[in-house]
Amino acid sequence: MTLAIDAMGGDEAPKMVIDGLSICQTKLPDVHFLIVGDERQLEPLLDGYPALKKICTVLHTDQVVTNDDKPAVALRNRRNSSMRLAINAVKDGKAHGIVSAGNTGALMAMAKFVLRTLPGIDRPAIASYLPHKTGGSVMLDLGANVDCDANNLVQFAVMGEVYARNVLRLKKPKVGILNIGEEDLKGNDSVKQAAAVLRNTPLDIDFYGFVEGDDIGKGTVDVIVTDGFTGNIALKTVEGTAQLLTHLLKGALTSSFMGKLGALIAKPALQKFKYKMDPRKYNGAMFLGLNGICVKSHGGTDALGFANAVTVAHDLVYHGFNDLIKEDLERLMDAHNNET
Amino acid sequence: MTLAIDAMGGDEAPKMVIDGLSICQTKLPDVHFLIVGDERQLEPLLDGYPALKKICTVLHTDQVVTNDDKPAVALRNRRNSSMRLAINAVKDGKAHGIVSAGNTGALMAMAKFVLRTLPGIDRPAIASYLPHKTGGSVMLDLGANVDCDANNLVQFAVMGEVYARNVLRLKKPKVGILNIGEEDLKGNDSVKQAAAVLRNTPLDIDFYGFVEGDDIGKGTVDVIVTDGFTGNIALKTVEGTAQLLTHLLKGALTSSFMGKLGALIAKPALQKFKYKMDPRKYNGAMFLGLNGICVKSHGGTDALGFANAVTVAHDLVYHGFNDLIKEDLERLMDAHNNET
Repeated sequence: MTLAIDAMGGDEAPKMVIDGLSICQTKLPDVHFLIVGDERQLEPLLDGYPALKKICTVLHTDQVVTNDDKPAVALRNRRNSSMRLAINAVKDGKAHGIVSAGNTGALMAMAKFVLRTLPGIDRPAIASYLPHKTGGSVMLDLGANVDCDANNLVQFAVMGEVYARNVLRLKKPKVGILNIGEEDLKGNDSVKQAAAVLRNTPLDIDFYGFVEGDDIGKGTVDVIVTDGFTGNIALKTVEGTAQLLTHLLKGALTSSFMGKLGALIAKPALQKFKYKMDPRKYNGAMFLGLNGICVKSHGGTDALGFANAVTVAHDLVYHGFNDLIKEDLERLMDAHNNET
Repeated sequence: MTLAIDAMGGDEAPKMVIDGLSICQTKLPDVHFLIVGDERQLEPLLDGYPALKKICTVLHTDQVVTNDDKPAVALRNRRNSSMRLAINAVKDGKAHGIVSAGNTGALMAMAKFVLRTLPGIDRPAIASYLPHKTGGSVMLDLGANVDCDANNLVQFAVMGEVYARNVLRLKKPKVGILNIGEEDLKGNDSVKQAAAVLRNTPLDIDFYGFVEGDDIGKGTVDVIVTDGFTGNIALKTVEGTAQLLTHLLKGALTSSFMGKLGALIAKPALQKFKYKMDPRKYNGAMFLGLNGICVKSHGGTDALGFANAVTVAHDLVYHGFNDLIKEDLERLMDAHNNET
């Protein structure tokens, strides 16, 4: 398996990227990396990891996509950027997937333009794994599509279900649509129509119905389907609330001698808690619905977080995610065509 | 000041309601309560609080709104319910505000029908106080309006700003619109148009611009404006994430002897943390934009939570919230009329 890596995206790139790959190298022994970026910066970094260097090919380019580049500008003027060449490698069959910690809008625009969407998918979605009380779920869309109609939501449900079943290895994943109440009458037209379609789908989907914001943390369902506006805000609200609580906890524990003493004694337990909530563990947003695996790492992450994003891409390729989705999408389209 | 209380709404009503009022009675010495409900249940409960009983009038009715009543059905068939009669008391000038822990949809439908909206308000909004790192903010709408246009959002901004300035006593509250990015180009048409209006408003509003989901917990702004679909999901996501984190923290601290010991020593500090996140402290959703103060308590709360909801209604009445809003709305309408 070869993964194309945009080495120049991310706040601490390219060092963070190469350090991250060195972590992957032991975790994912079957992977070869096609590293795209400035070889004058990359070669010295790779010299620090001789074992990693053996499984890497460097594709040199000077051009980079900056965080300020508008998607349309990046698409037009960054055709030789590390991001674009890494995506091209997937298109040309030289890599099975691509990982970048660069500009999200540019990455989505380029990936859509170069890789195109899968048959049966109108719009790709951004998906991510989220922790809950007893495990984890996948939520999508997280920001690729501001407005979504019922068809988009149904397609997101299909992609999320295939991911949960094949990559998260859940036997019969439950799929829910994010809404402001559980009753059929609640919500906007898109969620109501999408729910009606999923209740009668010919696909073997375990559709739970509507879920609410607090069901994300409860783990009521394994796949949470939503439009990109709501999903992005929900995801960032999870992140912000987690930060707020750890801030308040820290404040409470450091405000008294007994608090500090107790925290010292309970340090391993508190670290276990911290580890469970570590955002680096959940780094790696998947662009689903494209003719090729594309994963976006958080730009501000470190080597450990980047390594996780690479693992996410690896898992999607390893489980043949896109082929599995294609099968379900074909069945979904057949069912629709028979209806009309 | 007289507050009308729907004594029959809420899971543990009417006992939870009367217990809650007894807490208020010492906290809010200037208030008289008009308690609406089944006097056969209420009188024995009030006998337990002689001091409270002195400042209460009981208005008897047998009829109640159930949690299963659809809003339209409640409106038509529950004209003698405790909820409806309590709202009527505000309309008839017998009370300055009303508090209910009953069916939210029914309460909003009845309050809208009986009290009507303020001049300049197309649709009322549900607002709530939310804690953040350095204090608290107000967020609206939290579920009254699934689809909101730019005008609705601007009106929510005006109401939220008046609340933050007069009730939260902030000198120059910052107002932000919840979006999926801070750049002008991000988001749907409603948020973009509302932001354009607020950037040029003749009102003395400190408009910050767009905020994201994680800004809720950070406290980036004092007033968070959003549509009812997104707002409801964001609010419940905050609640669910807080529950998830306290669950994980508890799990980590009780999984080892040292964790338990540390937690025991740090107990006062941990209780301080727990207290800061206690949802009862933030109970009391305000229905803003009506010709009368109406506050919805969580149905599952206890006496302490209900007492907080009553305090929220008290504060709105005490600060003359509706008169203050009217002034700003008139100026906003004048400005619009001058433009057109």
